[in-house]
Amino acid sequence: MITPTITVNVELGERAYPIHIGAGLIGRTELFAPHIKGASVAIVTNSTIDPLYGDQLRAALEPLGKKVTTVVLPDGEAHKNWETLNQIFDALLTERADRKTTLIALGGGVVGDMTGFAAASYMRGVPFIQVPTTLLSQVDSSVGGKTGINHPLGKNMIGAFYQPQAVIADIGALHTLPERELAAGIAEVIKTAAIADAEFFEWIETNIDALNRRDDEALAHAVKRSCEIKASVVASDEREGGRRAILNFGHTFGHAIEAGLGYGEWLHGEAVGCGMVMAADLSVRLGKLDEAARRRLVRVIEAAKLPVTAPQLGDDRYVDLMKIDKKAEAGEIKFILLTRLGATEITSAPDQAVRATLAASV
Amino acid sequence: MITPTITVNVELGERAYPIHIGAGLIGRTELFAPHIKGASVAIVTNSTIDPLYGDQLRAALEPLGKKVTTVVLPDGEAHKNWETLNQIFDALLTERADRKTTLIALGGGVVGDMTGFAAASYMRGVPFIQVPTTLLSQVDSSVGGKTGINHPLGKNMIGAFYQPQAVIADIGALHTLPERELAAGIAEVIKTAAIADAEFFEWIETNIDALNRRDDEALAHAVKRSCEIKASVVASDEREGGRRAILNFGHTFGHAIEAGLGYGEWLHGEAVGCGMVMAADLSVRLGKLDEAARRRLVRVIEAAKLPVTAPQLGDDRYVDLMKIDKKAEAGEIKFILLTRLGATEITSAPDQAVRATLAASV
Repeated sequence: MITPTITVNVELGERAYPIHIGAGLIGRTELFAPHIKGASVAIVTNSTIDPLYGDQLRAALEPLGKKVTTVVLPDGEAHKNWETLNQIFDALLTERADRKTTLIALGGGVVGDMTGFAAASYMRGVPFIQVPTTLLSQVDSSVGGKTGINHPLGKNMIGAFYQPQAVIADIGALHTLPERELAAGIAEVIKTAAIADAEFFEWIETNIDALNRRDDEALAHAVKRSCEIKASVVASDEREGGRRAILNFGHTFGHAIEAGLGYGEWLHGEAVGCGMVMAADLSVRLGKLDEAARRRLVRVIEAAKLPVTAPQLGDDRYVDLMKIDKKAEAGEIKFILLTRLGATEITSAPDQAVRATLAASV
Repeated sequence: MITPTITVNVELGERAYPIHIGAGLIGRTELFAPHIKGASVAIVTNSTIDPLYGDQLRAALEPLGKKVTTVVLPDGEAHKNWETLNQIFDALLTERADRKTTLIALGGGVVGDMTGFAAASYMRGVPFIQVPTTLLSQVDSSVGGKTGINHPLGKNMIGAFYQPQAVIADIGALHTLPERELAAGIAEVIKTAAIADAEFFEWIETNIDALNRRDDEALAHAVKRSCEIKASVVASDEREGGRRAILNFGHTFGHAIEAGLGYGEWLHGEAVGCGMVMAADLSVRLGKLDEAARRRLVRVIEAAKLPVTAPQLGDDRYVDLMKIDKKAEAGEIKFILLTRLGATEITSAPDQAVRATLAASV
């Protein structure tokens, strides 16, 4: 089945860019052409994705007559570090990439975040295009301009806000995605609905089976609506001074899970799925959210085949890890809580309530 | 002798900031106070500067009641790399620096460039203040927002455009500066005059001895006028799309000298001094500049005790190194040439003329 191309525009003034969503887009030369100005292109991808989609992308670029280099990184969150980032710089300098060389990120969130940061930093900034091949990166990394790498002491601690020239989200690429990664992507779709759009949340409840079996039309709608919501939030707060922080619903607990287990043990989306369950528990505990709404959230997360029980790390370790979250200020943890499905509140929380949530979640 | 505080405002819209220039400014609490919003401050300095000015700065911050951490880096351009940058990140994360922690760069250009890039990248951006302690950094790194580190294959290849909250240029700190570094700073003063202001160039010719013997008033004027000129150029072209490139006069040859000899062998300003002599030679060779103007430029560079003879690297190596300059596009080298004292032209040049200049310069 062929889905038509949908375009969502991210309105950021002179940094505005389009997100194209549809099946078979990686092969479409005309989507890339307007965004490649220099004489050369560097595709940055990983060892899993290059064999699947590398040739298709190189064939799409062929008619443009550019010099094309491919940088193949090792796959996985564990490689989202300086050493791997430096492989990109090494390749760019060896190939004499200049300030007009366009980087194309072909892969999931790790490739996108690292390529984006490489583009932000190489010669103090070169253009880049995102070609996200996972559901998570199509709904999450496509919008917001967050790029970066991990540090042994914290996730995404080093990076930049840097916008792509365009995002080309090929729904077709989701057919080769492993089950776990599909579920991890659905976690971000659920999150986006839960914080901002009760109607979209209901749509997910109704269509969760279609998403699980990778129905193109359902996936395209989920990506489109998620990008629209995120784009509207980001447009109002590009550098995360205020409102944008609501996108981190589930992430405070989720990042602690990821860091506590060691990056790569749980997928980011899995940690966010479980983190949302924990944040909803805390919301109910503080009298912000009713129990029925919490149950609906847990039920749809379960239906998406995501974990709803947190790993045992010890309460102190959880609290400690959450204190180095980027949202923390002077050691005080900020939580994104739900007040109903579709609405949030950002607040600190009494230590006792946090520990009660931790006790109830493992 | 006490020089009054002069303030130059760098007009960059919401990124505008003041440069305070005068003797004894490091100790003045009220210059720092308006720019420190969070609960903690991290001073980044090096092992040479910390014993000279660290206590003075910490005493100035004391009344503000902030948590102050000092990160002491090894001294020298050879350490302007990822490993040293990572020392800053390690310290910030260990000390739980948050998004409102202000970094203060206390030192020369290397400390300033690395601290600025750390500030640009830590949690995707925290505020920072520049306290440049060398003449070069007071006139060069104070304005322009260029931050970054070197890569084995090229100088300043990895970095960001990132503006400080304020620059506090203490002329008093120049009295402890080694002779060679003073001269290297004067090279940038000469450069700034040569590209944009014939009157200021004459002032330097008249006052070169006062500058050499570190007269406070002469130094303060030289810093002020250089910052004003640079600020006006940068305000018209923040991200180096066009006009701003004229600030790289002498840098195309200069960078090749630095990279060819290995970073740290010649000081940056020394390489730029010699690079200006070479660029002026090329300007005359291409019929852009008259011989009398070239001689005046060479004479003032000599009077500042700067090298005017280039090191032997071999022509091919020079050309090769210049091709990976950030100004190069698709392998074509762009030169900033003089058309008279105070005016420039940016152009490529025939290989033959470039090689004639190289032959005449070593």
